[in-house]
Amino acid sequence: MIYFDNAATTWPKPSEVKKAIASALDEYGANPGRGSYEMALKVSRLIFETRAELASLFNIKKPERIVFTANATESTNLALKGFLNPGDHVIFTSLEHNAIYRPLKALEKRGVKLTMVQAESDGTVHPEMIARAVRSETVLLAVSHVSNVTGTILPIEEFAQIVRLKNIKMLVDVAQSAGFLDIDVEKQGIDLLAFPGHKGLYGPTGIGGLYIGEGINLTPLKEGGTGSKSQSWEQPDTLPDRFESGTINTLGIAGLRAGVEFLKSKDVKNIREHEWNLTKRFLRGLTQIEQVVVYGPKTDVFRAPVVSFNIKNCDPGEVSFMLDKMFGIAARSGFHCAPLTHRTIGTEETGTIRFSFGNFNTIEEIDAGLDAIKEIVKELETGTCGELL
Amino acid sequence: MIYFDNAATTWPKPSEVKKAIASALDEYGANPGRGSYEMALKVSRLIFETRAELASLFNIKKPERIVFTANATESTNLALKGFLNPGDHVIFTSLEHNAIYRPLKALEKRGVKLTMVQAESDGTVHPEMIARAVRSETVLLAVSHVSNVTGTILPIEEFAQIVRLKNIKMLVDVAQSAGFLDIDVEKQGIDLLAFPGHKGLYGPTGIGGLYIGEGINLTPLKEGGTGSKSQSWEQPDTLPDRFESGTINTLGIAGLRAGVEFLKSKDVKNIREHEWNLTKRFLRGLTQIEQVVVYGPKTDVFRAPVVSFNIKNCDPGEVSFMLDKMFGIAARSGFHCAPLTHRTIGTEETGTIRFSFGNFNTIEEIDAGLDAIKEIVKELETGTCGELL
Repeated sequence: MIYFDNAATTWPKPSEVKKAIASALDEYGANPGRGSYEMALKVSRLIFETRAELASLFNIKKPERIVFTANATESTNLALKGFLNPGDHVIFTSLEHNAIYRPLKALEKRGVKLTMVQAESDGTVHPEMIARAVRSETVLLAVSHVSNVTGTILPIEEFAQIVRLKNIKMLVDVAQSAGFLDIDVEKQGIDLLAFPGHKGLYGPTGIGGLYIGEGINLTPLKEGGTGSKSQSWEQPDTLPDRFESGTINTLGIAGLRAGVEFLKSKDVKNIREHEWNLTKRFLRGLTQIEQVVVYGPKTDVFRAPVVSFNIKNCDPGEVSFMLDKMFGIAARSGFHCAPLTHRTIGTEETGTIRFSFGNFNTIEEIDAGLDAIKEIVKELETGTCGELL
Repeated sequence: MIYFDNAATTWPKPSEVKKAIASALDEYGANPGRGSYEMALKVSRLIFETRAELASLFNIKKPERIVFTANATESTNLALKGFLNPGDHVIFTSLEHNAIYRPLKALEKRGVKLTMVQAESDGTVHPEMIARAVRSETVLLAVSHVSNVTGTILPIEEFAQIVRLKNIKMLVDVAQSAGFLDIDVEKQGIDLLAFPGHKGLYGPTGIGGLYIGEGINLTPLKEGGTGSKSQSWEQPDTLPDRFESGTINTLGIAGLRAGVEFLKSKDVKNIREHEWNLTKRFLRGLTQIEQVVVYGPKTDVFRAPVVSFNIKNCDPGEVSFMLDKMFGIAARSGFHCAPLTHRTIGTEETGTIRFSFGNFNTIEEIDAGLDAIKEIVKELETGTCGELL
């Protein structure tokens, strides 16, 4: 199998991650912070160290301001629902994933006001468009760092410069950028950072996190046992306990630590160069195929390793089915949980085929992918899409 | 190490669970329901089958009414916050864990009315006490099946008979009973069932679930990408998608399936007999030690394998520290996230030492535990608690 669905979940995982997970059940079998025996303390150290690794990766000064969640979607929900109150105004873009869009639409019903900034058809969002959307009651800008459909990179640092002046906080969903772009919450002015563990950080599914900037008080999404202030009915005020109710995913954290260590040992810069080379080669190859329409930034414009395209007059679902059955290529088709983006790029009726690359993909695989697409196009010239299998 | 903290997390895990988790990253690396390629379909099947296994374990007719969560605390939060509205009245008991108590206290601030039914000092809750707490605006009874401090088993079936007549729904937290007692949502009249994966079901941490009875509509705790109705901003109405936003913990689910299969192959009845034998032996041994105070039901009264006790005039934290350092025994001390229970049993100042047993504990370990306690008591007669190390 050639795996081109790394924007959903990176695969395969580094051998270090597999090893860490396989041994985690033996090593870290206990609940942290709730027992004083040796294994429980060992788990507490694991969690502490993983927070520290993540803090250094994102240049976060206080590791305890990173709270673990089940995935980036829980992180965006916690950030949005924990921060926004009725009457508040929030700005987002037409590139947002449903992880931001759907909780915002739920909050709209409770009196939160929304303004969507429309991106251009290649995914570009000009900072002045953000500036124009600001109102006196605006308290938050919620944006993805990278579109999960087109790979377009948003100029979050410039956004931050605009909103900071008005005391507006910025939530950034780094689902597609963590592990590919440099992320520095200080330099980039990120107040709330939602990240998944299972994509570019090479951890397993089931673990993610939210960084909560200094001075931001969120209402918890969940209350419960925290192992601290155990004799009180009140959820503790201290971070990270306030937002980590119930038994934490120690297995996921052990895997995530190994993933972040892998990333640091490889260096994000090297991974970025490799993945951008793959992406560029793929994009250049696609432009040679007449029947293919590519979405997002122009071919040689730097983007994340996510490419959406279509074969003219052909349903993307059928193409991805053919890619799997005829060529053993795992790619994604459909709407990728981002309906607004499809309206933006003009594919709201059909969706797209999405190829997304990871550290373990090779040039040879890219070429095999291009050959497969050419083959499918050729076959389609003699038949009709979907009649070939 | 002798591990007596199974009420927190069972340990060790069955070898089948370890194997399932170790291979899950290779086998189930993809996102379910979002890609049509072979591995994504395989993950969808894994999740479907795990739901079916759980449904058969709890006699749930429609597996899709089980939604996966990060842990039982997320399940109780989803149930309580998704079900209760301002003005609603809810009944709970003084045995509740903070996983029920803290979200209820948060809801109280939003206008939900609470009545706590006071248990007797051994943890007994008489059904007529529940009946007496019912008001015209009561919509929910939220109870634990088993106290996580005293092991007391609550007569939930009798509770259900009372509340059903008044059209009041019953949420049961089976954190301490799943895998030990028989659970049958039909027979026991359970409308909402919150369960963790990492305790008596022998799965890993990071996975739990909530069964949502027929006709119950909950507001989701989190919205986001569900892989279904991907082109819409609206959270889908269909179960389980409505409550499973973001990438699901496939690794945890793979481990949980293996855990439930292990449980079924052993038979819950056999596990129960084994653990009750251990518990009875431990309780009988404890009663021989004059300086020990045991809480909860009388020695030979059937309870779950959770025993709280104290050594007179000695801080439980110091005892558990000594157990670990001097005897390599992992036990728990403190409040076990259940402040109300400690008020009920009279230990609100000190907490208790808690021993909790699992399938892999042996008679020899119980005897070693008793010997260790005797040794500590003996040492304490010549010194003062805490001066011994």
